[in-house]
Amino acid sequence: MIPNYIEHLGIAVNNLEESIRFYEQVFGLTCYAIEEVKEQKVRTAFFQVGQTKIELLESTDPEGPISKFISKKGEGIHHIAFAVSDIEDKLKKVESRGVQLIDRTPRKGAEGLDIAFLHPKSTQGVLMELCEKNS
Amino acid sequence: MIPNYIEHLGIAVNNLEESIRFYEQVFGLTCYAIEEVKEQKVRTAFFQVGQTKIELLESTDPEGPISKFISKKGEGIHHIAFAVSDIEDKLKKVESRGVQLIDRTPRKGAEGLDIAFLHPKSTQGVLMELCEKNS
Repeated sequence: MIPNYIEHLGIAVNNLEESIRFYEQVFGLTCYAIEEVKEQKVRTAFFQVGQTKIELLESTDPEGPISKFISKKGEGIHHIAFAVSDIEDKLKKVESRGVQLIDRTPRKGAEGLDIAFLHPKSTQGVLMELCEKNS
Repeated sequence: MIPNYIEHLGIAVNNLEESIRFYEQVFGLTCYAIEEVKEQKVRTAFFQVGQTKIELLESTDPEGPISKFISKKGEGIHHIAFAVSDIEDKLKKVESRGVQLIDRTPRKGAEGLDIAFLHPKSTQGVLMELCEKNS
């Protein structure tokens, strides 16, 4: 089986601080990290909910992927990230089964994970990420 | 803290059988249940991924909520469901903190859960569900 569990859900937001307040005050969750990922043109904030994290994503650039997503679809759930073992092997496997890779080789994401995105055109309209804690 | 963990992710799909094949063949997941929820005008299919389920949702009615969602946004992630304890109390709590309730009292959802939806206008654009295994 390719995914071990759902590592995180990425949620596109307009204003990171306002959204952090929402998750803290309404749901009593704790934001345990804020991190800028320059390559992705986002600032991120993390909450742990059971086994899975909620990753809020605020764009730092009007031309960045999160700005474009919000312009098109509004604030909301942006992607699902599956925790996998041996990410390079798993990328080859899903590609051989017809999935189009956005990242053919893993790159560094937030929290130092090795990550790679799959194209939503080939995954039933859902932007999916595979990710692995590097050793 | 209100959510114990993420119980499931609802994903809107055009064709349930085609999407089941996708999750089974590409990711090696197993569809363990297919259920029609007449009140919601959907057929659902379930997969377990770690602590969380993926719930595929196919509309059974062109006027149903999943048809409308797909017309507006395309296939993709439809909602996040948080597992909670004492759902009636938690609904009161989130309402007192400014969340607009779609369901003021819980009703029966798939898998016999007690469920209630929160309005995305009041939850940063994300359709959220609270759910509880009834005893």
